[in-house]
Amino acid sequence: MKPELGVCYYPEHWPETQWAEDAARMRETGLSWVRIGEFAWSRIEAEPGKFTFDWLDRAIETLGAAGLKVVLGTPTATPPRWMLDKHPDMLAVDAQGNPRKFGSRRHYCFSHMGYREESARIARILGERYGKNPHVQAWQIDNEYACHETTLSYSRAAVEGFRDWLAQRYQSPEALNRAWGNVFWSMEYADFSEIDPPNLTVTEPNPSHVMAWRRYSSDALVAYNAAQVGALRPLTNAPLIHNYMGRVLEFDHFDVGDDLDIASWDSYPIGFLSDRLDDSPEHKRRYLRQGDPDMQALHHDLYRAVGKGRWWVMEQQPGPVNWAPYNPAPLPGMARLWAWEAIAHGAEAVCYFRWRQAPFAQEQMHAGMLRPDSAPAPALGEAAQVAAEIEALPEIRLAKAPVAILFDYPSGWAWETQPQGADFDYFELILETYRGLRKLGLSIDILPVDSDTSDHPLLLVPGLFELPDALKLRLAARKGITLIGPRSGTRGPEFNIPLPLPPALPGLDATIALTESLPPSAPEPLAQGGAIIRWLERLEGTADVVEETASGQPVLMRSGGLHYLAGWPDAQALARILFRACGELGIETRDMPEGLRLRDTEVYRFYINYAPEAVSFDGLEIPAAGIAWKETK
Amino acid sequence: MKPELGVCYYPEHWPETQWAEDAARMRETGLSWVRIGEFAWSRIEAEPGKFTFDWLDRAIETLGAAGLKVVLGTPTATPPRWMLDKHPDMLAVDAQGNPRKFGSRRHYCFSHMGYREESARIARILGERYGKNPHVQAWQIDNEYACHETTLSYSRAAVEGFRDWLAQRYQSPEALNRAWGNVFWSMEYADFSEIDPPNLTVTEPNPSHVMAWRRYSSDALVAYNAAQVGALRPLTNAPLIHNYMGRVLEFDHFDVGDDLDIASWDSYPIGFLSDRLDDSPEHKRRYLRQGDPDMQALHHDLYRAVGKGRWWVMEQQPGPVNWAPYNPAPLPGMARLWAWEAIAHGAEAVCYFRWRQAPFAQEQMHAGMLRPDSAPAPALGEAAQVAAEIEALPEIRLAKAPVAILFDYPSGWAWETQPQGADFDYFELILETYRGLRKLGLSIDILPVDSDTSDHPLLLVPGLFELPDALKLRLAARKGITLIGPRSGTRGPEFNIPLPLPPALPGLDATIALTESLPPSAPEPLAQGGAIIRWLERLEGTADVVEETASGQPVLMRSGGLHYLAGWPDAQALARILFRACGELGIETRDMPEGLRLRDTEVYRFYINYAPEAVSFDGLEIPAAGIAWKETK
Amino acid sequence: MKPELGVCYYPEHWPETQWAEDAARMRETGLSWVRIGEFAWSRIEAEPGKFTFDWLDRAIETLGAAGLKVVLGTPTATPPRWMLDKHPDMLAVDAQGNPRKFGSRRHYCFSHMGYREESARIARILGERYGKNPHVQAWQIDNEYACHETTLSYSRAAVEGFRDWLAQRYQSPEALNRAWGNVFWSMEYADFSEIDPPNLTVTEPNPSHVMAWRRYSSDALVAYNAAQVGALRPLTNAPLIHNYMGRVLEFDHFDVGDDLDIASWDSYPIGFLSDRLDDSPEHKRRYLRQGDPDMQALHHDLYRAVGKGRWWVMEQQPGPVNWAPYNPAPLPGMARLWAWEAIAHGAEAVCYFRWRQAPFAQEQMHAGMLRPDSAPAPALGEAAQVAAEIEALPEIRLAKAPVAILFDYPSGWAWETQPQGADFDYFELILETYRGLRKLGLSIDILPVDSDTSDHPLLLVPGLFELPDALKLRLAARKGITLIGPRSGTRGPEFNIPLPLPPALPGLDATIALTESLPPSAPEPLAQGGAIIRWLERLEGTADVVEETASGQPVLMRSGGLHYLAGWPDAQALARILFRACGELGIETRDMPEGLRLRDTEVYRFYINYAPEAVSFDGLEIPAAGIAWKETK
Repeated sequence: MKPELGVCYYPEHWPETQWAEDAARMRETGLSWVRIGEFAWSRIEAEPGKFTFDWLDRAIETLGAAGLKVVLGTPTATPPRWMLDKHPDMLAVDAQGNPRKFGSRRHYCFSHMGYREESARIARILGERYGKNPHVQAWQIDNEYACHETTLSYSRAAVEGFRDWLAQRYQSPEALNRAWGNVFWSMEYADFSEIDPPNLTVTEPNPSHVMAWRRYSSDALVAYNAAQVGALRPLTNAPLIHNYMGRVLEFDHFDVGDDLDIASWDSYPIGFLSDRLDDSPEHKRRYLRQGDPDMQALHHDLYRAVGKGRWWVMEQQPGPVNWAPYNPAPLPGMARLWAWEAIAHGAEAVCYFRWRQAPFAQEQMHAGMLRPDSAPAPALGEAAQVAAEIEALPEIRLAKAPVAILFDYPSGWAWETQPQGADFDYFELILETYRGLRKLGLSIDILPVDSDTSDHPLLLVPGLFELPDALKLRLAARKGITLIGPRSGTRGPEFNIPLPLPPALPGLDATIALTESLPPSAPEPLAQGGAIIRWLERLEGTADVVEETASGQPVLMRSGGLHYLAGWPDAQALARILFRACGELGIETRDMPEGLRLRDTEVYRFYINYAPEAVSFDGLEIPAAGIAWKETK
Repeated sequence: MKPELGVCYYPEHWPETQWAEDAARMRETGLSWVRIGEFAWSRIEAEPGKFTFDWLDRAIETLGAAGLKVVLGTPTATPPRWMLDKHPDMLAVDAQGNPRKFGSRRHYCFSHMGYREESARIARILGERYGKNPHVQAWQIDNEYACHETTLSYSRAAVEGFRDWLAQRYQSPEALNRAWGNVFWSMEYADFSEIDPPNLTVTEPNPSHVMAWRRYSSDALVAYNAAQVGALRPLTNAPLIHNYMGRVLEFDHFDVGDDLDIASWDSYPIGFLSDRLDDSPEHKRRYLRQGDPDMQALHHDLYRAVGKGRWWVMEQQPGPVNWAPYNPAPLPGMARLWAWEAIAHGAEAVCYFRWRQAPFAQEQMHAGMLRPDSAPAPALGEAAQVAAEIEALPEIRLAKAPVAILFDYPSGWAWETQPQGADFDYFELILETYRGLRKLGLSIDILPVDSDTSDHPLLLVPGLFELPDALKLRLAARKGITLIGPRSGTRGPEFNIPLPLPPALPGLDATIALTESLPPSAPEPLAQGGAIIRWLERLEGTADVVEETASGQPVLMRSGGLHYLAGWPDAQALARILFRACGELGIETRDMPEGLRLRDTEVYRFYINYAPEAVSFDGLEIPAAGIAWKETK
Repeated sequence: MKPELGVCYYPEHWPETQWAEDAARMRETGLSWVRIGEFAWSRIEAEPGKFTFDWLDRAIETLGAAGLKVVLGTPTATPPRWMLDKHPDMLAVDAQGNPRKFGSRRHYCFSHMGYREESARIARILGERYGKNPHVQAWQIDNEYACHETTLSYSRAAVEGFRDWLAQRYQSPEALNRAWGNVFWSMEYADFSEIDPPNLTVTEPNPSHVMAWRRYSSDALVAYNAAQVGALRPLTNAPLIHNYMGRVLEFDHFDVGDDLDIASWDSYPIGFLSDRLDDSPEHKRRYLRQGDPDMQALHHDLYRAVGKGRWWVMEQQPGPVNWAPYNPAPLPGMARLWAWEAIAHGAEAVCYFRWRQAPFAQEQMHAGMLRPDSAPAPALGEAAQVAAEIEALPEIRLAKAPVAILFDYPSGWAWETQPQGADFDYFELILETYRGLRKLGLSIDILPVDSDTSDHPLLLVPGLFELPDALKLRLAARKGITLIGPRSGTRGPEFNIPLPLPPALPGLDATIALTESLPPSAPEPLAQGGAIIRWLERLEGTADVVEETASGQPVLMRSGGLHYLAGWPDAQALARILFRACGELGIETRDMPEGLRLRDTEVYRFYINYAPEAVSFDGLEIPAAGIAWKETK
């Protein structure tokens, strides 16, 4: 199957007289998919129970007649105003106790059973009407879960849900007290009804309490999504999709993904660079109009895992957006490059957001493929070029990468709960690890913790907070090289320090005797160059020392292929460690020019140039913001 | 009429035995005006309906007998404590929903009808008693509207007022939904009673919603002021004044000014430099004890427009203040310079704040003309010098400036609602434009949007968010040079993007195809030097290109005298653009030494030296913190 | 009496089977004291009135049997969950009006009478059971008052307590209005019931109001402590102790100390360096693993005064902690150095916190003397070394220092209430003064304001906000040199500016005519080098000028030994001023190498090296993080 392009479209925003022309232009551009409906609840059900479907019927018919396949969204991210009269307590509540009011979107609490039922109801009604519609070939459930920090809600419904969840997990308050160590500071509970969410405490709450709250909140979101899945499944054979966001770790995407057919995500490379990355000002200046060279690829690989191999980009940035601190325009070529990079990572579809720039409401400064006056915006032509290029190429087939990284959402919650050092961030650790691999020219698979990793010669396990015994045994038994740490396995399932002390890896005699977090001013130099930054564990044991500090403290120890890395390496140290491991395994590495990245598929090697200048490599001349490929087989 | 000096005085703060001596010293210093009463409500009406006027009678008599003219303030900025028992819901409410409590000042909500009536009542009672008093020659209504961010209140009264205002403006919820584009994100309302202020939403609210809220909040303030005006007008022939603050754009001063006779403002140059300007640390260091060289002049010109030609400085900083992050003392000479600069801009009166430094309460670290022990503070002698100098000179008469800038409060709200770039600030744009003109030695008029500009050869229209068709036609028909932009005309009255795309100026073929906001690290260099910063619009069209980027993108286009500037110029680019326009118009420009400014009146040219060192210019030697003048006719 | 070592221990955290072995290891290490019980309320009284003492009986017996002396804590810092059902309104309330919830510690309001009685009740019950127990040789009341900013609470109980306190202090609203100057801004009250705490006001509240609130809040804490003292005193002869924190000025420790027998404090040098000091990044980098060279010594001297000569370190950092932004490990030797420095300042006991690192709850990343697996952590061996060294030395006896600094908690509140310059901080002023003295090799006494200072040739009085007449007379009559200022005596007891203007020192003709606060970019250079930073008063008068600015403005004036310093000196200026004063008095000064400090006791001079490198001095080679001593008599 060849990859396809698409676009997000809002027929309710435009006069019906314009729909057919829009559809025709989409097809001319080479688009196959059109996503609609995900914010249209007030137009579908303007009053409770009073439905208006004729416009949507005609919109689907018009789009379908033009040859477009429709992704139909359930509109539950934007409950209409009347919903608050039916369910006045459905609003999410922030950590200070303020309700998060109507007037934008995502103002519902995942724990509210009344709204959960309303969501299943509207999904069912849509399913009943369009589940067998031949033009509706996929469904999107809700929109961007967790966006605007909406996973955690401190509403009454959430408090009650949390207590029920605790009762199920622990069965008795005594068991909970023991699990959390509530004897510390007399925090013991006599009844589950005494337990609140861990907000507004005088000083930090018990981290076990916080982790339980994070797990509950993720589970509530998963159950909310499952309610809609349950309503739709019997009514349609089309795949169910959700569009996740970038750098969102608030809920366990693998859990949501288990209930869906395809994972998709919304990729805004320039917005993310400005708004969600912690890189240096020089880095941000260099990639101002391109986005970070690794941020998109990392998410492509991650969401490929969340979708168990099937994934899309549901929203692709086409030009300047409206929500970052600064919103420059992409370099010419980037709207093409981003699409191709997604395809090289296995995307089944890439949909640009949005068709025409809206001249009203919150996103009026968000570019589209068309300007508000329907003239073409720069992305239109680049999309057409991608469509033509896809047409000209045979199918792109995925290849298994030589390296994998284990990724785990609860580890994100764990280190947010207990950073211990102000800049210890799980996503940053993953991103820097991923970037280190990419700078060596490697393709990478991101995997959930319970994956079979036997086909990946090199496996990295950074910052995985819990290492159950079964996993330890599996990792120790692996062939190839397994690089665990820093901080991996340092907590048990209830967020206690396990005994014997971590990492306690079978066959590797290395114990963390003491842990330090280091301010940016105090990197710890390594004997072979580079340094440990942020996090340094003091190892004891008899395992072989591969890396040590300039003062002789072991930092990387191994026993056969099993390694433990006792600190957060800077780029230089990471490069050496990865280069050595790859060399030992016979994995080919390259010293990539700044901003150029490789991605290997079964037949093609893609050369993706995020740099603002042309680069020569492998006999190719890849222009600034350009992409190239050649056959490797 | 010659300009006069005055002072702010609080008889209720001092023993009655001291009043006569204070009054005599004021006269000796050469002061003519004394403002009193604006915070004295608790001394006038200690219990509801129980009035004590004898002390105020005697104070006015004592001051008047000494030859001073009294400005009497209505005390409504400081409702006494008992008012809360009568009107428990009168407190303003902040955006988080917390009432803004009693214990300082300005704790009332402009929308509260009960307090509005109380304010009219006290104004009427004062008017009845003092409206014809020969010593009371002017009135000040309330004090520093909007100070401490008090325009926006989220009280119940404001919510109800907002809904009524919306109902009047839009007539039906359907019309409002259409105007705001509420179909976006299912934000449609079925009834005006469903609409809240746009606070505490999950993510950003609809900008049309925010703009409506800003307009309503300004209108509520205007109506509050009008209630007091309505009470006083029938009772007195003395002019009614309000004392506005610096860099306050929260409400439409032109609207308030329309109901009053004279505009005045409170000028704190050193406090503002530290607290309200975004200039570089070097700039702030250089002008630490003088204040910014353009901030005062800009406000003088602005409030001259608000007062339709009649304006005062009601409070003039005399020494260190108490409210900025740091509070250094002025250089010797500044208390004189500031007064003279105001006079050169046409001030009818300059009143120092305050007579004697108070040894108690909130402003005990705020200098006066006297120390707390009644010894002279530095400002006293400088004021006496100004008084003598005024005496020695003939009347200062205003001259029309060759340049005007259109100024518009709603544009301030618009770009605060939707900055799109983190540092896009309307006031900053106006200030930098004004500064650019002053560095060329020019005198400037600031004008409201509906002004006749035919006598101003050069007209600047930066950042004016809405350009109604009638205004466009007027601007296109002007003689001379009209420089519009950046961002001007990019929104319609309901904050939508107009079609055809902006700026759509008659006779100027230039269209904004795309807009970028630029971080400070990424200025866009211009072909002729300098750069565009912060904001860059991509122009298309056939108009003549005057300026372009180094990469050839047009930035300034013209057709005859009508220009559109598609970006925020840095100082170098702005200077060139203004210099070229002035040259074309035959307006004389000068290359001013750093810190020296000119101001032309009908007969005199004033040389105002904000620099901390002496400067030679035009054959004059102007000392540090000094002022000089010579006849030009 | 020789100094002793101890440790904090939580028998309730560990299996009872481990207690005896733990106790034996403590004794082997050379520890004498063990503090227990201060967070164990939920284990002592799991339900209201249902007591479980057997475990605590056995714990005390086990520890005592091993030869340890027990410090028993009252557990009132951690009221159990059921307490909230009995007293739902006992929670402290933050300045925004949010209750500070259960789930950590210190969640009670000092003003709540119900909880105050509960606290006295549990203290009495513990006293009845253990007051005569031979192993319980000291008591700790509560734990770290004010930690987590818990002094100020805006609860209903606090509001009512405040009003009662005001009624007692002022007797009539009229007197209060006069004292506070409430005529300013019509803030006058007609009844005490109208007065709220000074939070959530529109702009700053009256500083007299804030100071009254600060005094009340301190008094409420003092009364809370006294309630427990009152319960325990009749039941035990063992000394009563509280463990204060570092850099906490929220309440008057001298007032609490007056009701207790011994002062102690919790010393976390590395946590404080990172979290509570404003020094330069270079300074923080240099002392990253040692802590600031003067922070501990200052607190030792301060708490010696609070304890009227008797003081301990109750909690001594042993390794990395869990609560600072970054948490590095101490250099080898620091756990010894810190203990010895305390001893050199007269500590009767130094107790490490804690015995074994807890693998659960909030402090799982806080090091102990043992690791979670009971293996020795680095501090264990260092403590054993200190114990052996104490054994080998004769008793350390205090010597009176040649210099004293007056320290005053209300001055901390005063300048927090009215900083006037953003970086004016009383503690910082004290610390920099103290540091200046230490860099000259001096030992210092810190004294409360009402102290006899006749034995101290040099007395420093920086930033003491109020100088009552009796104190002025005492200071003027002193022999030796008295250095007052900056800002000393500039407020009266109700926070008004006194007349005649400050400092108004008997026999010293010097008056503050004007005051400036200076931003960091604008130091005022002195004629003899160095500069005034932050705060500069303009002095007038005929007293002798000792220091002046480069422009000739007097900065230090004197008459005989009485000096007034009219600004905040930088390190260079301070060093010169102190060096000159010491020279005049014949006090020996030394030019200390960076990081090395001296401390003189009756017989020994201690050399304390905070530097990360060895230093040679006085013929001694003191290693990095090392300590040395020699006899001086």
